[in-house]
Amino acid sequence: EDKTPRFATHQVGVAGFVFREDTQSVLVVKDRKSKFSYWKFAGGLSDLGEDIGDTAVREVFEETGVRTKFQSVMTVRQQHNQPGAFGRSDFFFVCRMKPLSYDINACSEEISACQWMNIQELHEGSKSVAPITRRILNLALYGLKEGFHNVDLYAEDMESIYRGLRYKLYHRPYPHIAESK
Amino acid sequence: EDKTPRFATHQVGVAGFVFREDTQSVLVVKDRKSKFSYWKFAGGLSDLGEDIGDTAVREVFEETGVRTKFQSVMTVRQQHNQPGAFGRSDFFFVCRMKPLSYDINACSEEISACQWMNIQELHEGSKSVAPITRRILNLALYGLKEGFHNVDLYAEDMESIYRGLRYKLYHRPYPHIAESK
Repeated sequence: EDKTPRFATHQVGVAGFVFREDTQSVLVVKDRKSKFSYWKFAGGLSDLGEDIGDTAVREVFEETGVRTKFQSVMTVRQQHNQPGAFGRSDFFFVCRMKPLSYDINACSEEISACQWMNIQELHEGSKSVAPITRRILNLALYGLKEGFHNVDLYAEDMESIYRGLRYKLYHRPYPHIAESK
Repeated sequence: EDKTPRFATHQVGVAGFVFREDTQSVLVVKDRKSKFSYWKFAGGLSDLGEDIGDTAVREVFEETGVRTKFQSVMTVRQQHNQPGAFGRSDFFFVCRMKPLSYDINACSEEISACQWMNIQELHEGSKSVAPITRRILNLALYGLKEGFHNVDLYAEDMESIYRGLRYKLYHRPYPHIAESK
């Protein structure tokens, strides 16, 4: 609807799903300030102009000291009237991240605990996680079993029709259909 | 980073990929105001508080008169310094839509042309489309060939941990891993 005034409506949060193969563990944290005592994935709000993969790298590092590399987007949540968003809306992305280091350095002041936790232990329900976290764990277990190519959305870096600009396009992989470029 | 002031950073645009089986055609439009003479999918900006699937239904109807139903998300684009976004950022979603009617009613004033165009004709390059549109067509052709379950992200309606709120979670389908709820 072209007549609607255009203004930014959404803030963007990103969390990183970081899995280490050797111990089959997931990097999880507890929020110091949350009223819920959930284990969750490290994450936070994107800075203005920051790509979601870069937010994931930055936030995981800031909260845990673990260095990671973006692999894919696993899920996106859209929520309106988000309590922390001043009546606006929120997109929350969970990115699958490859760990480049394993040592957990002093957690940031926002985090009361962080550790590598075995994925089965986390999934079985003895540990407290939010429903969305449980969905990601289900997706991850499916990906570990059958291959993450069934689960992932990959980033493609593309040139915009507006000169000098680029953008990231997230989509499922496909074989190259005979295309005219 | 908790110290960063929180404010909305992104506007949200949504387009609908609408395919009719009987003629193997895609619903496409031309923007009256664009400097590019591209065929594109009908779409527009989300209203505040509007879910992306609802934006797709509304915009396709407003621009073409065709009634549709949301099926899945096919792709999401993130762009910064978007010309139409006042220096902020932009998420653009393309949703796969099922047509509930076929008749094209008077196109809105923003649209100079709209029609059902055969997908092969559109894809083969004799018609002018933007690179992102070409990506969607590739994804769609792959989906038509091998099944859209390889391409789609489905919406799951979920209850928030914040009382009274719900949200939509978009992710790949997975078989029910034995889960504790």
